[in-house]
Amino acid sequence: MTRIFVSEVIEKDINESIHLSGWVQRRRDLGGLIFIDLRDRTGIIQIVFNPEVSEKALNIAEDVRSEFVIDVKGTIAQRDESQVNHNIETGKIEIIVEDIEVISKAKTPPFHIQDETVTEDVRLKYRYLDLRRPKLQNTLKLRHQLKQSVHSFLGHEGFIDVETPVLSKSTPEGARDYLVPSRVHEGEFFALPQSPQIYKQLLMLSGMEKYYQIVKCFRDEDLRADRQPEFTQIDIEQSFVDQEDIMALNERLITQVMKDIKGMDITAPFPRITYDDAMAKYGVDKPDTRFDLHLQDITEFSKSVDFKVFKSTAESGGLVNAIVVPDQADAYSRKDIDKLESFVKIHGAKGLAWMKSTDEGFSGPIAKFFDDDKQDELKHLMNINDNDLVLFVADKKKVVHASLGNLRNKLAKDLGLIDKNQYNFLWVTDWPLFEYDEEEDRYSAAHHPFTSPKKEDEDKLETAPEEVRANAYDIVLNGYELGGGSIRIHDKELQERMFRALGFTDQERDEQFGFLLEAFTYGAPPHGGIAYGFDRFVMLLAGTDNIRDVIAFPKTASASDLMMNAPSPVSEDQLKELHIDMDIEE
Amino acid sequence: MTRIFVSEVIEKDINESIHLSGWVQRRRDLGGLIFIDLRDRTGIIQIVFNPEVSEKALNIAEDVRSEFVIDVKGTIAQRDESQVNHNIETGKIEIIVEDIEVISKAKTPPFHIQDETVTEDVRLKYRYLDLRRPKLQNTLKLRHQLKQSVHSFLGHEGFIDVETPVLSKSTPEGARDYLVPSRVHEGEFFALPQSPQIYKQLLMLSGMEKYYQIVKCFRDEDLRADRQPEFTQIDIEQSFVDQEDIMALNERLITQVMKDIKGMDITAPFPRITYDDAMAKYGVDKPDTRFDLHLQDITEFSKSVDFKVFKSTAESGGLVNAIVVPDQADAYSRKDIDKLESFVKIHGAKGLAWMKSTDEGFSGPIAKFFDDDKQDELKHLMNINDNDLVLFVADKKKVVHASLGNLRNKLAKDLGLIDKNQYNFLWVTDWPLFEYDEEEDRYSAAHHPFTSPKKEDEDKLETAPEEVRANAYDIVLNGYELGGGSIRIHDKELQERMFRALGFTDQERDEQFGFLLEAFTYGAPPHGGIAYGFDRFVMLLAGTDNIRDVIAFPKTASASDLMMNAPSPVSEDQLKELHIDMDIEE
Repeated sequence: MTRIFVSEVIEKDINESIHLSGWVQRRRDLGGLIFIDLRDRTGIIQIVFNPEVSEKALNIAEDVRSEFVIDVKGTIAQRDESQVNHNIETGKIEIIVEDIEVISKAKTPPFHIQDETVTEDVRLKYRYLDLRRPKLQNTLKLRHQLKQSVHSFLGHEGFIDVETPVLSKSTPEGARDYLVPSRVHEGEFFALPQSPQIYKQLLMLSGMEKYYQIVKCFRDEDLRADRQPEFTQIDIEQSFVDQEDIMALNERLITQVMKDIKGMDITAPFPRITYDDAMAKYGVDKPDTRFDLHLQDITEFSKSVDFKVFKSTAESGGLVNAIVVPDQADAYSRKDIDKLESFVKIHGAKGLAWMKSTDEGFSGPIAKFFDDDKQDELKHLMNINDNDLVLFVADKKKVVHASLGNLRNKLAKDLGLIDKNQYNFLWVTDWPLFEYDEEEDRYSAAHHPFTSPKKEDEDKLETAPEEVRANAYDIVLNGYELGGGSIRIHDKELQERMFRALGFTDQERDEQFGFLLEAFTYGAPPHGGIAYGFDRFVMLLAGTDNIRDVIAFPKTASASDLMMNAPSPVSEDQLKELHIDMDIEE
Repeated sequence: MTRIFVSEVIEKDINESIHLSGWVQRRRDLGGLIFIDLRDRTGIIQIVFNPEVSEKALNIAEDVRSEFVIDVKGTIAQRDESQVNHNIETGKIEIIVEDIEVISKAKTPPFHIQDETVTEDVRLKYRYLDLRRPKLQNTLKLRHQLKQSVHSFLGHEGFIDVETPVLSKSTPEGARDYLVPSRVHEGEFFALPQSPQIYKQLLMLSGMEKYYQIVKCFRDEDLRADRQPEFTQIDIEQSFVDQEDIMALNERLITQVMKDIKGMDITAPFPRITYDDAMAKYGVDKPDTRFDLHLQDITEFSKSVDFKVFKSTAESGGLVNAIVVPDQADAYSRKDIDKLESFVKIHGAKGLAWMKSTDEGFSGPIAKFFDDDKQDELKHLMNINDNDLVLFVADKKKVVHASLGNLRNKLAKDLGLIDKNQYNFLWVTDWPLFEYDEEEDRYSAAHHPFTSPKKEDEDKLETAPEEVRANAYDIVLNGYELGGGSIRIHDKELQERMFRALGFTDQERDEQFGFLLEAFTYGAPPHGGIAYGFDRFVMLLAGTDNIRDVIAFPKTASASDLMMNAPSPVSEDQLKELHIDMDIEE
C-alpha cells in the first residue's frame, strides 16, 4: 500500500485502508485505548490503538514517545460528534490502526517542539527540531512557492536565468566584502559578491537582452534584525528599455506572484510618488500607505505666529510639520505624549510640541501662543476636528522627516490602524543621484555608481550634484523597501563623469572598473533593471518580522551558525596552503 | 511601434511595418545600396538601405560599423529567389529600412566575434564579446531551459526548494575547502560548501520530507578540463524512501527533462548494471553503452595456453581480457597498433598483445603460441570473425580494467561508432562502500561517510570492509557520471561504526559531526537522495566537451577570472579587519 500524506487523508473515504508515516506529536492513554497525534509536513491526524482491533499494535504503541518516527496502516473512521477537533483540518476523522512499525526511537528533545517560549539561541542550535514546527515549515513552503512563481513568470516573459560567479572580485565601493584567499595566486583574494550588478550589465553588453537570477549575495556588515550575512536577491536586467518598461514588467510580475501565493488580485499600475513627495508627505522614503496620518507642512503659517520655536525655525530655513491624530485627544495623557516625545528624540528632534482640539479651542502648553484667529487658521489649514491630537516638530528638514515619519509609523501600530491583510505596493521615483556624506565631505552614489542621471540633469553632474535626479525607482510594500532599480549608464564618457563626481581618481577608476568602461566602447545597448530583497519579500508575505523565520539555516546577530558551530578554527596546514597567517591580538 | 525580436519577424506578413534593435553583424555596400546583417539574441536578419526609400537612413548607415547598436523601423520584403540565404532562418526575407537610429557606436573589437580561432584566454578576457556568439547564447538558453524544466518537475512532485548556507563549516573529509575568514570571530573561518549533504539530511530530520535545490558548490582543487572551482548541483533528498523510489523519481525527472529540452521520448526504466558487472564488461564505472566492444574475460582459457605472459598472469591471480574490434584487422597497421599500445601504457598496462583473424587463422607476433585447437577455442569463446582485430591486456585487475576500458572508448571515437544523437541513460548500482587507499593504508568512503551499507553486509563493516556493498547508485549518461546518490544512514550507532571504519577517533568524530549524530537520536526518518552535476548535464545536452562553454563567466584552469582580474590583492585594512596577515614566501 502506497504511503500517503496526512493532507491526502481527507480526500479518501471512510473505512478506506491507508498507510501513513510521520512523527509522534503527542500520545495519550485513555480508557484502555491509546491516541497518538501523528505529524508529517502536511498536517496532523489522530490515530487510535484499540485492543479489539490489534492487541499487538496497542502493545507497541505503549512504548512510543514524542518525536518517535512511526509507520502505520489502518482505516479511516468518523469521530464521534463530541470528539471533533476544530483546530486541525483532519479533526473530523481518525485512523483506526491495524499495524504499526517504529522506524526510529527518539530521546526526549531538549525542548517541546511547539513551545514558542524557548530562546532563539536554543532553537538555532537544534534548528532541525525547530524546523519541525508547522509554522516554520509553512514559511519555507511559501518561500518555495514564491520562487516557483518568479521562475515561471520570468521564464514565460523570455528572461534567461544566468548564473554569475560567487568567487568574484573585491571592490571598495559599497559594504564590506567577505574575502576568500586564493591558493593558486599567492597574496590574492576573491570576494563574495554583494550583488551581481556588474555581471548583469556585462550580460546586457553581450546581447543577452533579458536576464534574471534568484541569487545569493553577501555583506560582511553588523547585522540588524532584518539583515543576514548571506541573503537572496531576485535580480533582473533588460536591454532596450526605459523606466516605464521596467515598471510595467514588475507590475506584471507582482500581480502574478500575489495571485499565485495569496490568491489576491492586485490592481496595476501601482501608485507612484516621487522621492521628494514621499519625504514631504510621509517623512520616509518607503511610505506605508495603508493608513493616513500624513505629515503636514505649516512652515509658511509658522512665520506669522507668536510661538518663537516655530517662527524662528521657519524663518531660518527649517521646517515645521505636524501630524493630526484624529479623535485621540482624550485618549492621550500627558504621560503618553511624553513617551512620544522620547521616541522622536531618538530620531534627533529636540522636542515634540502638541495641542489638543476641544470644543473650546486648542488646549495644551503651547496653545496660548495661538490667538483665536491663528487657531481658526490652523484648524482650517490642517483640517483639524474636535478631539484631534496635533503633534508638531520644528527642526532641520532631515530631522523633521525622520522624527515625524517614524512617529507616524509608531502611531499607526499603537492605534491599530494597520490592516494586516492589505498589500500596498508603491513606486518611489525620481531619487537623488547622490547622497552627501557630511563626515567625509564628499558625495556618494545614492543607489550605486552605475545609475544614470535624468537626461535634463546631466549638466549639473559637476556643478550641482545635489540637484541631479536619477532614473531610479524603488518598489515599496507596506513601508518596506521590497526592491530597487534604475536605468543604467551605458556610455563610457558619462560613466567616467560619474566616477569623477564620486571622487575617484582616473587611476582608481581604471584599476577597478577599466574593463567595464572598455566594454561600453564595443556597442552598448541601453539597459536597466531591478533587484528584490527575496528574504524580505517572503517575510512580508509570511507576516513575520523576523528574517530568521524565512531562512532554513540562518546566522545569529553575530554571524554564527550555532548548530554547525561555524565559523570555526581550521588547521595550520590549511592556512599555509592559502599563504595566510593568523593575526590574533594577545 | 513595439520593438520585436528577429525571431518574431517570420511570424509577420510581407509589407508589415516592424521595429527592430540589435547589433551590426556585418555591413556591405553594393550598387548604391547598403546591406546590414542585424543580430539580436534570437537570430540574424538582413536589413536594406535604399536611397529611393530613405536617403537619410542610407546616409546614417554609411557610418555604421560592426557591433554598432542600432534601432531600425521598416517593412518586411520578400527576397529575390537568387538572394535567398539558406543558412539563416530569416533568409527568405529582408527589411527595407525607413528609419535608423544609432544607439551606440563601437570601436573595432579585439577579435571578430565569429572567429573560432581566437585563443580562449583572449575570449575570456573579453567574455562579454565572446558571449555575443550565437553558439554560446544558445548554450546559456539551454542551461536556462534545463533549470526551468527541473524546477517545474520537482515542484509538481511536491519537492520544496530550500536554500542552504554558502557560509558553512570546514570539514576535513573530502576535497580542499575554500575558506572565508570571519571578522567577528577572531581566528575562525567559514568554508564554502562542497555540497549541501549535511544540510539536506538535517532537513529530512526536520520533517521536510522532499527537498531539492539547484545550488552552487565549491572545491579548491586543481582543475581538469571539465571541472570548475564553483559548480552547480541539482540536489535532491527524500524521506521514507528506498533505492527503488529514488531511481523511479529520477527516471521520471529525466524523461520529463529530455522531453522538454530535446523533444525526445526516453524509455524508462533505464537499464541497470552492478558496479562489478560494469567493471567486468566495460572496464570503467561509467560505461558508454552507445557501442559494443565489450571487454571479454579469457583468464580461465589463458591458464591452458602456451603463451607465458597470459598463462602466468592468469595463474597468479591477474586477469587476461580482450576486446574484439570487428572487421578492422586490415585497417590497423603495425604502427597504428603501436599507438594503441602507447595509449594503454598511460593507464598502467605493460603492453598490448594483439592478433588479427584472417581466413588462414590468426596472424601477429603472438599467434604462434596458439595452436589450431587453441585458436579455434578462442574464436569460439570470443565470437571472433574473419578480419577482426583482437586486443589483449594481461595484468592486475585494476590495470586491465583501466587500460582496456579507456581503450574501448578511444576505439569507438576513432572508428566513429558513436551516434551523437543517442542518449543512453544507465544506472550503476551496488557500489563498494569503501575504497582502499594504498598510500595511506586506510579505507575511505567511496561515496561519502553518510552512505548506508546494504543490510546484509552490515556485519562485515569491521571484519571485511572491502566486501561491504553500499545502497548507492550512479546515473550515467553516454560514458559520463551525471549524478550519484545513496540511501543514507539514519541510525546513530551505525553512523558511529562507519566513522570508526573510516579511522576517525571518537573525539574527531564528535568535534566534526557530533551535532549530526545527536540529531539522529530525536526521531530520524529513513532518507536518501541524489545530486547531479548540473554543468556537466548541460554540457552533454549541448554537445560540447568544454565546461567553460556552459558557464557565463567561467574561471581558467588556474582558477582566475581574466575579465574581472580576480582574484586580486586587497588592502591592508581589509586584512587587519579579518585578523589575518599575508604569508608570502620571498
